[in-house]
Amino acid sequence: MPINFFLPTRILMDDGCVRKHAAVFKELGKKALIVTGKHSAKANGSLQDVADTLTAQGIDYTVFDRVETNPSIANVREGAAFAKEHHVDFVIGIGGGSPMDASKAIALLACQDLADEVLFTGPYTQDILPLLLLPTTAGTGSEVTQYSILTNDRAQSKTSIANPLIFPKIAMIDAKYTPNLPLRTTIHTAIDALSHSIEGSLSKRSNALVDLLAEESIRLIATYFEDLIHDRLDARTRADLIYASMLGGMVIAQTGTTAVHAMGYSLTYFHHIDHGRANGLLLPSFLAFLEKQNPEPVHHIVDIMGLKSTAAFRDVINRLLGEKETITNEEFRKFSGIAIKAKNIPGCLTVPTEEDLYQMYVESFS
Amino acid sequence: MPINFFLPTRILMDDGCVRKHAAVFKELGKKALIVTGKHSAKANGSLQDVADTLTAQGIDYTVFDRVETNPSIANVREGAAFAKEHHVDFVIGIGGGSPMDASKAIALLACQDLADEVLFTGPYTQDILPLLLLPTTAGTGSEVTQYSILTNDRAQSKTSIANPLIFPKIAMIDAKYTPNLPLRTTIHTAIDALSHSIEGSLSKRSNALVDLLAEESIRLIATYFEDLIHDRLDARTRADLIYASMLGGMVIAQTGTTAVHAMGYSLTYFHHIDHGRANGLLLPSFLAFLEKQNPEPVHHIVDIMGLKSTAAFRDVINRLLGEKETITNEEFRKFSGIAIKAKNIPGCLTVPTEEDLYQMYVESFS
Repeated sequence: MPINFFLPTRILMDDGCVRKHAAVFKELGKKALIVTGKHSAKANGSLQDVADTLTAQGIDYTVFDRVETNPSIANVREGAAFAKEHHVDFVIGIGGGSPMDASKAIALLACQDLADEVLFTGPYTQDILPLLLLPTTAGTGSEVTQYSILTNDRAQSKTSIANPLIFPKIAMIDAKYTPNLPLRTTIHTAIDALSHSIEGSLSKRSNALVDLLAEESIRLIATYFEDLIHDRLDARTRADLIYASMLGGMVIAQTGTTAVHAMGYSLTYFHHIDHGRANGLLLPSFLAFLEKQNPEPVHHIVDIMGLKSTAAFRDVINRLLGEKETITNEEFRKFSGIAIKAKNIPGCLTVPTEEDLYQMYVESFS
Repeated sequence: MPINFFLPTRILMDDGCVRKHAAVFKELGKKALIVTGKHSAKANGSLQDVADTLTAQGIDYTVFDRVETNPSIANVREGAAFAKEHHVDFVIGIGGGSPMDASKAIALLACQDLADEVLFTGPYTQDILPLLLLPTTAGTGSEVTQYSILTNDRAQSKTSIANPLIFPKIAMIDAKYTPNLPLRTTIHTAIDALSHSIEGSLSKRSNALVDLLAEESIRLIATYFEDLIHDRLDARTRADLIYASMLGGMVIAQTGTTAVHAMGYSLTYFHHIDHGRANGLLLPSFLAFLEKQNPEPVHHIVDIMGLKSTAAFRDVINRLLGEKETITNEEFRKFSGIAIKAKNIPGCLTVPTEEDLYQMYVESFS
């Protein structure tokens, strides 16, 4: 039973987390850079809570609120230049996966000159600004991972910086910032979290401890499938979903993601399909693919979700996602050619061929 | 659902762990101090494996093998002086709780001058030698905690240094070093791990994530109650027990221990009763005490163990521990007076009075 587990991020989850743990900010420095997107952190009150808390603690701060959805390399370079210009001591990332992943790259690039050629590979030195992340969606789990996923035009896909160096020092998690998310976003992010836990558990790198976390996360999210479909979400649901999302982050911090993410990136890059939705569209076909050679672990996952078969899982996902996008088989050929090169592929329990990926794409949209 | 979770130790568990992860030692420095006891690390092959691996990696080392059972302050000061004298870069602790806890204190005292009065309280600076721990019993969980428990003659008890500073950098865990432990030791250490997970789960500081780990640990250990009683232990059992013990360590790293440990220390200090055995002797009465005001969580724990009641749990523990020691009620009065002052007491779901502690002692030995 080999176990390989590392998660150095301090996790603080609570109702009113930012104010309750106000003292924590002081451990990180005297001047903060808040990294966020244009709107949501303002709308959900998280930016104000953080700003008020920093002021009350006597910590100076400046805001970089120009993070794009699926941030590009140029976007994080702009943020890093901003961080250097303002001589900040630490970085606070607030938002969904895009601002959180951007804040990791910004914290890194503010301390190290890394050309595009080595940004995703290193070598890196140990220099980085300390990071505190505050998720305002329940999906990415980025608050507890060592990944920063950026849009990489060179690869016509999304590529990850994956290094223990970019683990956040602190994750502050409070479901109170998520209720004003649109239902679509709530569904897509919940499926992203589900995909993390399923891909992680069905990865070659999984182990007993990872499975324990993944299964709890999968069980929790599945509990709310019908509530998500029928828009019945209360505070308890929101709290459970952001907890499940954090567990999913803990899982992929150990295992990485696999084929679903590798394939999903093309749907996002070429068709602007939401990241979580892209994963959801592909997940049933991935399970059906794995089931052929690994029936036991796949049936175990289906069972944890309270479902009878991978076909029943496909039905639930179809109800969650609604009408699908139209994409041509020619495009799927191209996407398969891109996905097969992704570093996530070899982690799959059964490693798919390019043809397998193509078949999964086709099946997912038929 | 507040969650507070921090576990910065990198966990590496595997069959042949030391050799498989040989490269890890180099990350810690060029000269190691190996801290261990007189005999067991030699007998079970762990010392040789580590020494051979260090040599193969070109890392110099020296051995301090004078750690006592339940190490005293004087004992760890001797180790720290030895570390300074040999100018080591990092510390490797090999053994059960005594060598591992001693190695934490030695790593700290090698870098900071701390008088007895502030050893357990701080303030500490951030200076410490990096620590790698290798457990050779399946009980303490010390390889993943921020605690160093030392015999404290001033308090006539055992007292802990409890600070994130002393979290090991790396825990290397391999059940192959445990099969030559005497059955008594295997039982006592397994019950120590069980006690960690039960006390942690039934602590005020528990949370959903802690419970997940604690319950898995409790379930695993309980699976082997009958095998432990009848001395039917194979490699799988040993692997599961050291994994469960590690989970118990992850639990108390978040919650601390509570009344069982506080009371058990007197049994060890005054009657030299094994630490795990001391906890086991007291655990059934503690559960019966908590059950009065917290029936639900206690029954949940009993249920996880596959048992019908706290009385059935007492029966199993009695069969595991055999004949009990004779201790007078007068002594129990004294022990209660010592235990009530321990910092572990306020964490209990129902905080016991000194009289409650006395009654638990008496009931445990009747």
